[in-house]
Amino acid sequence: MAKKGIFITLEGGDGTGKSTQLKLLQQALSAAGIDALTTREPGGTDQAERIRNMLLQRDSGSFDPMTEALLLFAARREHLVNKIWPALEKGQWVISDRFADSTRAFQGYGMGLDMQVIESLYQLVAGKFQPDLTFIFDIDPEAGLNRSMKHLQVTSNTTESTEDRYERMGLAFHQRLRVGFLEIAKKFPGRCVIIDATQDVDVVHRQVLKVVEQRLGLSLKEAQHG
Amino acid sequence: MAKKGIFITLEGGDGTGKSTQLKLLQQALSAAGIDALTTREPGGTDQAERIRNMLLQRDSGSFDPMTEALLLFAARREHLVNKIWPALEKGQWVISDRFADSTRAFQGYGMGLDMQVIESLYQLVAGKFQPDLTFIFDIDPEAGLNRSMKHLQVTSNTTESTEDRYERMGLAFHQRLRVGFLEIAKKFPGRCVIIDATQDVDVVHRQVLKVVEQRLGLSLKEAQHG
Repeated sequence: MAKKGIFITLEGGDGTGKSTQLKLLQQALSAAGIDALTTREPGGTDQAERIRNMLLQRDSGSFDPMTEALLLFAARREHLVNKIWPALEKGQWVISDRFADSTRAFQGYGMGLDMQVIESLYQLVAGKFQPDLTFIFDIDPEAGLNRSMKHLQVTSNTTESTEDRYERMGLAFHQRLRVGFLEIAKKFPGRCVIIDATQDVDVVHRQVLKVVEQRLGLSLKEAQHG
Repeated sequence: MAKKGIFITLEGGDGTGKSTQLKLLQQALSAAGIDALTTREPGGTDQAERIRNMLLQRDSGSFDPMTEALLLFAARREHLVNKIWPALEKGQWVISDRFADSTRAFQGYGMGLDMQVIESLYQLVAGKFQPDLTFIFDIDPEAGLNRSMKHLQVTSNTTESTEDRYERMGLAFHQRLRVGFLEIAKKFPGRCVIIDATQDVDVVHRQVLKVVEQRLGLSLKEAQHG
């Protein structure tokens, strides 16, 4: 792939405000004349969303962690081949709500799958391709889960069937996730930036923009929140 | 896994009579006091059958060949962990209608996916585990497709939604498949036996039993067909 665009991923536990920050970043880029495609994982294309739905179905039994990783990388492959890579080749920016670091954190640190399995799958599916910039939104899991549960109550009528079952996996799991994301940031210091997600939305947004400006040599204005 | 049972796989193109031979072999083993679990791929467990259905849905767009391989190995992992390995550990025999050689043939030889990708996935999912014995049912693709289409017409009311889309992929594809299966038999001579599937059902059955007797040191009586 002859990559011309910029690929930014937003990572972290539930309730860290990733989705809000994704919209604000897109707006700020748009105001600067940069058209950024926003997407999410698992999913992002019709075929990948079908795999997502199978993974998240509430009534389904659980999959073996390696099976989950295989399914997630199957969805990722569809997402890369049919959406992310074609956009980047055209010079478009792409911002994704979660990408491979979520598999490292959830299936690796959270569920104990050998990290070498995950890296082998990454290599098969994506080769040397990596995000240009990854924001890791960090929050204490207790605070994050409270936020996330409130959000679920508000939107439960429409999202119940795809409710993220990880949110029901308990605090210890989410503490492993947090540790995992922080270790991932250390492992990939060239692209990862940790953001304190307990701060106000506007403060976080300003920090995100500052990083984008510094790393990618842009001048951006803040988007208005709410 | 502490393996005590015997794992036999039946492979080949469509219309080679694999399913009939599977039943006859099971009956002959049963008459000799051997309880053999029969299963199939893709599928074999509830979760693996869900992945199968997603792959075979008629109205779905097509997946990237690597995505297909990832989905097939996800289903295979479920099948191994939840059905094949537990049965073999208990000392039960398992006979599967298709296994990993079908991925080598269909995604590798048929669709051009790098065989190294398939072998890497096999290694991740199954390690050094291999079938004890693999029958490759060989038939000229034209003859096989005719048989298979007749079968579809008879059973179309119940099987339409999961009709194997490979059957609609044309003769050239099926000729690559045949070459693939024959090359797989050469690559794994320790476990693979090629059977001429143009012969009568009873003749094929006798040949299958003879191989099982010789390789596994048993004395078996033929099952009655039809």
